[in-house]
Parts: sequence; structure tokens; C-alpha cells
Amino acid sequence: MKAIIIIGDGMADRQLKELNYLTPLEAAEPKNMNRIASLGTSGLLYAISPGIAPESDVATLAILGQDPYKVYTGRGGFEAIGAGIELRNEDIAFRCDFATVNEDFVIVDEKAGRIREDATELATQIQDLKLKSATDIEVIFKQTLGFKGVLVLRGENLSTNVSACKPKLNTRVNSIKPLDCSPEAKRTADILNEFIRVSHSILKDHPINRERRFRGQPPANVLIPWGGGRKPSLSPLHKKYGLRGACVAAVSLIKGICKLSGMDIISVSGATGEVDTDTTAKANAALKAIKDHDLVLIHVEGPDEASHDGDLAGKILIIKKIDTMIGTILENIDLEETCIALLADHATSLKLKKHTADPTPITITSPDIVRDGVTHYSERAAYKGGLGNIYGKHVMPILLNLMGKPVEFGV
Amino acid sequence: MKAIIIIGDGMADRQLKELNYLTPLEAAEPKNMNRIASLGTSGLLYAISPGIAPESDVATLAILGQDPYKVYTGRGGFEAIGAGIELRNEDIAFRCDFATVNEDFVIVDEKAGRIREDATELATQIQDLKLKSATDIEVIFKQTLGFKGVLVLRGENLSTNVSACKPKLNTRVNSIKPLDCSPEAKRTADILNEFIRVSHSILKDHPINRERRFRGQPPANVLIPWGGGRKPSLSPLHKKYGLRGACVAAVSLIKGICKLSGMDIISVSGATGEVDTDTTAKANAALKAIKDHDLVLIHVEGPDEASHDGDLAGKILIIKKIDTMIGTILENIDLEETCIALLADHATSLKLKKHTADPTPITITSPDIVRDGVTHYSERAAYKGGLGNIYGKHVMPILLNLMGKPVEFGV
Repeated sequence: MKAIIIIGDGMADRQLKELNYLTPLEAAEPKNMNRIASLGTSGLLYAISPGIAPESDVATLAILGQDPYKVYTGRGGFEAIGAGIELRNEDIAFRCDFATVNEDFVIVDEKAGRIREDATELATQIQDLKLKSATDIEVIFKQTLGFKGVLVLRGENLSTNVSACKPKLNTRVNSIKPLDCSPEAKRTADILNEFIRVSHSILKDHPINRERRFRGQPPANVLIPWGGGRKPSLSPLHKKYGLRGACVAAVSLIKGICKLSGMDIISVSGATGEVDTDTTAKANAALKAIKDHDLVLIHVEGPDEASHDGDLAGKILIIKKIDTMIGTILENIDLEETCIALLADHATSLKLKKHTADPTPITITSPDIVRDGVTHYSERAAYKGGLGNIYGKHVMPILLNLMGKPVEFGV
Repeated sequence: MKAIIIIGDGMADRQLKELNYLTPLEAAEPKNMNRIASLGTSGLLYAISPGIAPESDVATLAILGQDPYKVYTGRGGFEAIGAGIELRNEDIAFRCDFATVNEDFVIVDEKAGRIREDATELATQIQDLKLKSATDIEVIFKQTLGFKGVLVLRGENLSTNVSACKPKLNTRVNSIKPLDCSPEAKRTADILNEFIRVSHSILKDHPINRERRFRGQPPANVLIPWGGGRKPSLSPLHKKYGLRGACVAAVSLIKGICKLSGMDIISVSGATGEVDTDTTAKANAALKAIKDHDLVLIHVEGPDEASHDGDLAGKILIIKKIDTMIGTILENIDLEETCIALLADHATSLKLKKHTADPTPITITSPDIVRDGVTHYSERAAYKGGLGNIYGKHVMPILLNLMGKPVEFGV
């Protein structure tokens, strides 16, 4: 028995007045997701526990059977590993986004108008940076997808305990502060503020940004590091569960978590981490991977991005695309030999444009599972599901059980 | 208010193709179990937690309100106490089964053809054994039910940390190894290997085994100790909950757990621990016991045995017999004064012939409980139950609450 975990990032949502009180999942009428629900048993998933709105990192860790309360050292470490940087123990790593700031370093667009190809060109300008406040520190920047990138500071006497927070509209960015009295935190805050200022001076008048302004697009005139972390240590799936795993994902965060979990990372050309991602390519990559792996995790970032943008049509579109992706998978695997878990890692509210602690629908199939009669994959249908309420940490044990490898207790 | 807990060991299962995707419980159409469901509220029981496939020992401990993660010292201790052996603190105890091995000590039948009466006679040959490797150790063997028995090693400097595992087809039995570097573990492994060899030399040409071979039955030509443990210490029910308890069970494991929980053990003639057990006698014993006890636990081993044998007809038969047993109980108790909890301690998959981590159906009645409208006792019907998902450790507190003795919190 093999297993496929399909994660629609932030796919769950609330009922929306403009959808006549349906949720985006209900409005999208995803027939292949509904087919999985009909074949399996559904329930509500709290990735961490009721009332906790998780980021995708801690949610995915929990779903892969890692205890985020123990292994989580900050987002940056996973992002850097996922971006292919060989992180050292002394390094500190940050997610690092292109954004648009005004002359006072106040954010006017957190994603620089969702910059795409232009970002790759601009990133070439941010190489081999030397900072005055840190002549002994190597500064490594790597752009990953669109506005997203990673910053690694390599050297001694650094600290992640600084106020480098997720970019937020209308906030000032070059005022990162140490969060303790240590010289390491003070020094790291100084380095990061200088990095922000230097990035701005390099980027602001770059021809690409001049052209963007000319085209009415927000210039990507700054880089904002956030979510600092160190190199995490996870127990690999093959040691923990005896499973050979593979990951089909666009975003570095998920790639990093899966890589650290000992899974093979399958690169998919056309996977953008946004609504326009190539879900067909992802389906094909997953179908190829399942042939020589026991567990394949497919992660689609798009629904979360659309939700953060408040883009209802985009959210419904990407749900429909995920549904088509699932259709391709269902047509080409043997359901007698494959379990499927379909879930959202967390809910992202279109209305609030942020993650919520709402439970998300999960549906799990296996040839032997007692079906619960639920015929739809949605937040509402999952209320009636046979799984009841489960936590992220239960997903792997439940799958292992259905794969005939339960965790045994007692002799 | 009194309470009866009815445990069908391994009674829950998966949907089976050969039953047109019904489970054995659904196929058996157990009208009295369904009546209990109609009178009460149902749910899904995880004896330990989702994803854990428990043995009956840890599951039953949890259901009786004991924390198996704290009190569990290995199966053998419970088996020995249940077999009526007065275990001392320094003793180590093992479950010990008659089996059939070939000349290389490789198992060809783990249960010696489910030997019955013959085992009792053969057991008389394994008394007052003297082992060369342990002249200071008293060797106590007691057959309990059919192929099942108990071995106690009495003396100093022994260890349970040896590789004495559950007998498995096609594995060698006289190669038990120490699992740490202590002289105690080394010595105990030597003693057990000698015990196995000596039992073989005594049994292999015994007239009963010669006759078994003549009849085409596998000879019970070896004894295999497994599941080593020490004398456990449990908090008795009368101290913990103020309840006088009784246990109606055939197998020593459950008797031992209940005895250590301070319950009276009711011996029932005709209770075999297999599909042919006398469920009428068990019903009558329980009805008698409930007169002067607050809590009666009735355990029926048969469904688990049938499942391990892959015997579908046997599993359905024993479910029907348990249903008849329940009918006798329902006819003869006052439901206005008695709560009933009907459950399986774990699921045993007929297809996999082993325990799984699947949740099991539980239904609980009391005259006052708000009924949930569920009218069947089955894995599928329980999905819709009002109890939702509960854990083994919740069973006693829920029953105490319905008995008018809830655990109180706050002043």
C-alpha cells in the first residue's frame, strides 16, 4: 500500500455572503474531490489544535508527524533548505521578500505587485553584498518564486531573536529591533536594517523598476527579511516510519520541510506557487513519483495566495485546477493499492485575508476503510464525517494504519 | 445505578469485499446490540489514540481507567496473575504457548492446531522442571486455555529485557537474545532458550503428540514464552471510583488486569476464549454478578481469535453469539438502574489477520442519556453517533457520570 497526501494550502474558508453563504470549496463544486470523499471517510482537521491559526510550516510539520513544538526553530531555516542552500549550524536564515516602500520605508505593497520574472533579474543585483555593520558576515540572498526569496547570514555571533516580522502594509521596515539584551541580537538587528537600506539603494532606481513604474506597476524597491530561524533537525520518514517519501511542491518552505524529512524533492517546471501554477505538471510529477516512493506529498500554494489577496475568483479557479489535477491522479493510480489524504493545512479567510483557526475538511480513502456516506469535500460536508475531529499529528498514524503498518502498543 | 461493560475483543473490522463492502458487525445484523445503540448514544473509540493499534492488555487497562503508559510492565505479569499465580516482586512472567516446530525449531503452527484438551494433559509433563542454566531459579508453568499458558521464573537476577516475541509463523524460537548488556538479560535469555529446548525434548515424542500426528493434527511439541513482564501495580476500582467490580472473562490476560484492578473474578465453566465459548453461561454469570457488584465487565475473546485466523464465518458466528448473550442480559436486568457500555477494545482485520488502529464502535446507554438516533451498532453507524470520538480513558469517567458519580472539578 502506498499513500498520497494532497494539501491545498489555505483552501478551507468561511461561508461568504457573495457566494450565497457557500464556501469557496462548495462553490467550486470540485467533482474529483467529492469523489474522494465518496470513496473514503471525512472529518475535520485541526493541524495543531482548536483555536490555533497555524502558518503552513508548523501545520505541515504536524501533518508529517513532526512535533512543531519541539522541532520548529523558525521559518527561515526551512525556507533556506528548500531553496537549496546548504545551511550550516551557525547560520541564521530568513524568508526575504521583494516589496514596495515609500521614501519613509513604509510598505505600500507587500509583494511588489506580485512581481514575477522581473524579480529574477533584480535578484542578480543583490549578490556578494558587503555590509559595513558586518564585515565578518557572509550575506547570501536567493530569490525563489516571484517576490519570495531567502536571506542567509553566515558567520558567528548572530541571533534570530530580532523583530523581523512578516511584511505588513503601512508599517516601517528598516526598524528591526533586538528582542533581548544580547550583543548578538543587537548586531543582527543592525545587519538586517542595513541590508534593507542597501537593498533599497540598489533597487530603487534600477532600470527594471523604472520600467515598472512606467507601466504602472509597483517597483520592487526593497528586500524585507522576516521569520528568522536556524537549521532545523527532523527525524526522516524512512527512519521513523520506514517510508520512502517524495514531495511535489513549488514553495521553498514546503520543499525544505520535506527535504529535512528525508523526502525526495521533485522539481516541477511551471509550478509557480500561485493561481497560475501548472497543476497538470504537478499531477504528472506525482504519478511518476508514486511509482518508486511509498508516500507522495503534493502541495499547492495557490489557494492561500488568492485568499491573502482577497481574490475570490482566483481562489475558486485554483480549487477547480486542483480538482482537475486530482482527476488526473485518480485516473492513473490503482485505488486498491493507494490511500489518499486530501486536506487543507489551514483555512485562509478571503474576507480577513489571513489564516484562521477554523478546522479544515480532510478526507481519507483506502480500499478497506469503512465509508461514511459523505459525498462532498467541503467544510460543511466534513461536519458529518466519520473521522470526527482529528489533529495534524494523527494524519500519518492514520495513513500508516491504513497502509497496514500501524504503530503497535502492548505485546 | 450499576454498569455493565461488554467487550467484544477485536470485534470491529473493515469493510470486506466478500460481504459486499459491509463489515462483519454489519453482516451479522446483531439485533440486541442494535437495540443497545437505539437506547443509547454511540461513538468511535480509540482505546489509546488515533493511529495506535493496541494489544488487548493496554486497551483494557485504558478502558478501566488505568494509564497504560504508566502501569504497563509487559503482558506476562497480567497473564500470570490472571492464571492464579501469586506473583512475587522479583518474579518475571511470560505468556507461554504450545506450538508446533520442525526439527530446526522453526514454527510451523503457532497454536499447535488450536490444541484443546490435549494441552491440559501435556502440561502435566512440564512440572517441576529443573534447568541446568538456572539451578537457583524456580520454573513455574501453567496451562490456562487451549494452547495458552503462563511461565513464571522465580528467583533473583532476572530480566524481562530479552527478545521473547509473540510466536510468528516461519520464525525460529530457541534464539531469544538479551536486549541489553546486563548479565541478568543474558542469563534470562539462556534460561528461556533452555526451557524451549527442554519442553521440546519432553513433548516431541509424548504419546499424545504421537496420537495427534496419527490423527493428522499438528503436535504440540514446544512451549514458547513471550511478552515478559513483572508484577504490575494498579489502583483498585473501589479505591479509585468507589465501585465494587466483577469480571466475567475466559482469558488470563483480562482476568489478571481485572484482578489487579480489585475486581472479583467470576469463573465460568464453558468459557473457552474461542468461537465455541459458552456465551449463555457468561450471560448468566454476569447477571448473577451484577446483583452484588456495581460494575461487571464481560469480555469475549472469540472475535479476535477468529480474526487472527482469517475465519470470516467464525467471526460472524461469535458476533451473533455475543448478540444472543446480550439479549439474555437485556431481558433480565432493569435498564432503569443499569448503564451499559458495548465496545470492541480494538479492531482486528480479518484481511490482515492482525490488530489495526481503526477506531471501534462504542455505544453507551443509561436511562437518562440523550439518545442520538443511531439505531445500529457498527463501525459505520457509530460515525453518526453523539459521542463523537472518545478515547479508552474516557470510558470510566463517562460511565461514572451516568451512574451519578461524576468526577468533580472546582469547589
